[in-house]
Amino acid sequence: MTLQDQIRQIGQQARQASQVLARTQTSLKNQALADIAKQLELQKGSLQAANAKDLEAGKANGLDAAFLDRLTLKDATIANMIEGLYQIIALPDPVGTISDLHYRPAGFQVGRMRVPLGVVGIIYESRPNVTIDAAALCLKSGNASILRGGSEAIHSNQAIAQCIYTGLTNVGLPKTAVQLIETTDRAAVGELIRMAEYVDVIIPRGGKSLIERISQEARIPVIKHLDGICHVYIDDKADLDKAIKVAYNAKTQRYGTCNTMETLLVAQGIATQVLPPLVDKYQAVGVELRGCQATQALLPQMKAATEEDWRTEYLAPILSIRIVANVEEAIAHINTYSSQHTDSIITEDWTRAWQFLTQVDSSSVMVNASTRLADGFEYGLGAEIGISTDKFHARGPVGLEGLTSQKFIVLGEGHVRG
Amino acid sequence: MTLQDQIRQIGQQARQASQVLARTQTSLKNQALADIAKQLELQKGSLQAANAKDLEAGKANGLDAAFLDRLTLKDATIANMIEGLYQIIALPDPVGTISDLHYRPAGFQVGRMRVPLGVVGIIYESRPNVTIDAAALCLKSGNASILRGGSEAIHSNQAIAQCIYTGLTNVGLPKTAVQLIETTDRAAVGELIRMAEYVDVIIPRGGKSLIERISQEARIPVIKHLDGICHVYIDDKADLDKAIKVAYNAKTQRYGTCNTMETLLVAQGIATQVLPPLVDKYQAVGVELRGCQATQALLPQMKAATEEDWRTEYLAPILSIRIVANVEEAIAHINTYSSQHTDSIITEDWTRAWQFLTQVDSSSVMVNASTRLADGFEYGLGAEIGISTDKFHARGPVGLEGLTSQKFIVLGEGHVRG
Repeated sequence: MTLQDQIRQIGQQARQASQVLARTQTSLKNQALADIAKQLELQKGSLQAANAKDLEAGKANGLDAAFLDRLTLKDATIANMIEGLYQIIALPDPVGTISDLHYRPAGFQVGRMRVPLGVVGIIYESRPNVTIDAAALCLKSGNASILRGGSEAIHSNQAIAQCIYTGLTNVGLPKTAVQLIETTDRAAVGELIRMAEYVDVIIPRGGKSLIERISQEARIPVIKHLDGICHVYIDDKADLDKAIKVAYNAKTQRYGTCNTMETLLVAQGIATQVLPPLVDKYQAVGVELRGCQATQALLPQMKAATEEDWRTEYLAPILSIRIVANVEEAIAHINTYSSQHTDSIITEDWTRAWQFLTQVDSSSVMVNASTRLADGFEYGLGAEIGISTDKFHARGPVGLEGLTSQKFIVLGEGHVRG
Repeated sequence: MTLQDQIRQIGQQARQASQVLARTQTSLKNQALADIAKQLELQKGSLQAANAKDLEAGKANGLDAAFLDRLTLKDATIANMIEGLYQIIALPDPVGTISDLHYRPAGFQVGRMRVPLGVVGIIYESRPNVTIDAAALCLKSGNASILRGGSEAIHSNQAIAQCIYTGLTNVGLPKTAVQLIETTDRAAVGELIRMAEYVDVIIPRGGKSLIERISQEARIPVIKHLDGICHVYIDDKADLDKAIKVAYNAKTQRYGTCNTMETLLVAQGIATQVLPPLVDKYQAVGVELRGCQATQALLPQMKAATEEDWRTEYLAPILSIRIVANVEEAIAHINTYSSQHTDSIITEDWTRAWQFLTQVDSSSVMVNASTRLADGFEYGLGAEIGISTDKFHARGPVGLEGLTSQKFIVLGEGHVRG
């Protein structure tokens, strides 16, 4: 069988399984998830043995320490995977939910019923825990999934997939409800992202270059997660304590995450009050600061920020700072340089807060809150399969609901069109 | 300026205008729509003069009567365009609507705010009334639009666009909120559907081949409206009167529409009761009938339906009929042959109705109602910009809400991530 035929067969099987999953009741899906958790526990030894092979090959191939760390199935990693499954079991099942059911003047009812998308293709780098997260979120939302993990994790992923297959068949669900692409041939991805008749959406998880390449080549909708160039704007009507607390947290709570602040905007009228104490706090933890001319005038020791800085997602302990005249200038800066991920205003002024909320076009817009809160868990969505920087279909953290769609339902009593 | 530069300039202008429109209040958008209606009334003479040029050229080029009819701006067409504008004025504005606002355990609030998609590209055939409908729906939902109508209607579309530009500028909105692509060069479409940085969604309106071609080539999400192979299933627990009324309406109320029934499925147990009177009614209005073997056994004069018939959208007075054992067989037939547009069950049985509603995966699923009701107006969405046969983003009739997205809003009091 050619590679193309293999991948198409996987697609066909996924499509068939998706029809079963779409009408599988919640309790059975939850039983499958619990059984998968049990298998992970039982197979811990063989998971770690498989993982050891990947780690050995990774070391031989000179992968760096951070990469190997993400690849390692520590006891805690497996415990987290199991814990994650129980969290997904606890989430409400969106499938079948009916909303907006109402009578039309002609006397029939119209509403919307939530249904799975169908088949979800997930392409991710060498983090074996994604295999479980992605499979579990798709299963709970009634979708069949096709998983393509990084080749460096292939043995780990195969061992995890074995646990998933056992869990599925133990409760009588088709094994093909979750399928791992076992070949590490890159052409498999090319085929997967073009099978529009078998795959309904592609979710790439990984670096920007991976996501851009897949979006370019896909013939299927892609839920994209590109840059996170996030801003906090401290308005001159801000509460000083809140401003310092939020701006400090938004930058320093974690550096490498997409919802970390990369540029701090400060209103001219409050700059002399808020910047010196904030700068002290940042410097105390080693954050490198780069300022606009006005910031440099205030704090002469600061490096200059260039045009390039406003467009950069540092993912590192670096922060650019710009002093702006007012909320309008802050919004204009954000709508020019933001990647439309997450932006926050710190203010006690009602009108400016609403101005910011309505005029900033980002997937999360906040008042008096840290950009670090933009996250599926923090928002109560449960685990997230990704964060969408698109506007189409889903925006921001994508949980179970983002893996579903709505169909119209019409309930009549012999109603016809006149 | 090259064609590519021209189209990119239009895109850039649309992106800028979209930022203005996103924060334009409802009353001003409604004023613009009312002013456009006034211009159409005032410019009726010049609209019809421009239209006469298109008609003349169309006749010279040998366009058929049906084509020329759709192209003609009759008094009634213009009156309908104006009436359509007032209907859109009367619809509620979805932009800014906040839903699901709730407190998280940590004490901050999370909710969702509805926002425009941004820039909508619409590609349509030579029906000048689409120019107004599409522009008005986009404007009301806060989106900038780029319109590319069929070249046979270019003079009519230019004249209509002039009314739109005047209406926009009269109320102080940017003229570039709606832009008609004036070149009839086909390469313009190729450019439009690839400008991902300036255009957020493409909506093709027209025949299947146009939509398929655009979906293939686009690098932007496309709201697709492909086949409408719609079914009515008459269950053996159906009320006979409702069954006959609905099955007759679903086929005969209009033949050329996507929500017209193409295949009638009848439960074996009720076939002898329901088919003879229905067949009489169909034959009385000249509907050609094609039956499965069991149907032919019951009604020997009937032509045989082939495998090809189950897959065909006739858009004509032709109906295929199949006798099935029960609701399960009906659902299996539908999930094999339906284009997932609209399917209806006629039954008085509660369990079978819900089985059908939950197991048929179509954009509209109905109980005791005619498939012809699947329509934005009938559903109370107001005018529709299209009917989506996709599952992603929007499914079924797409009105104002389908032209929007939701962003998260977070309202805190200095909340940070712990």
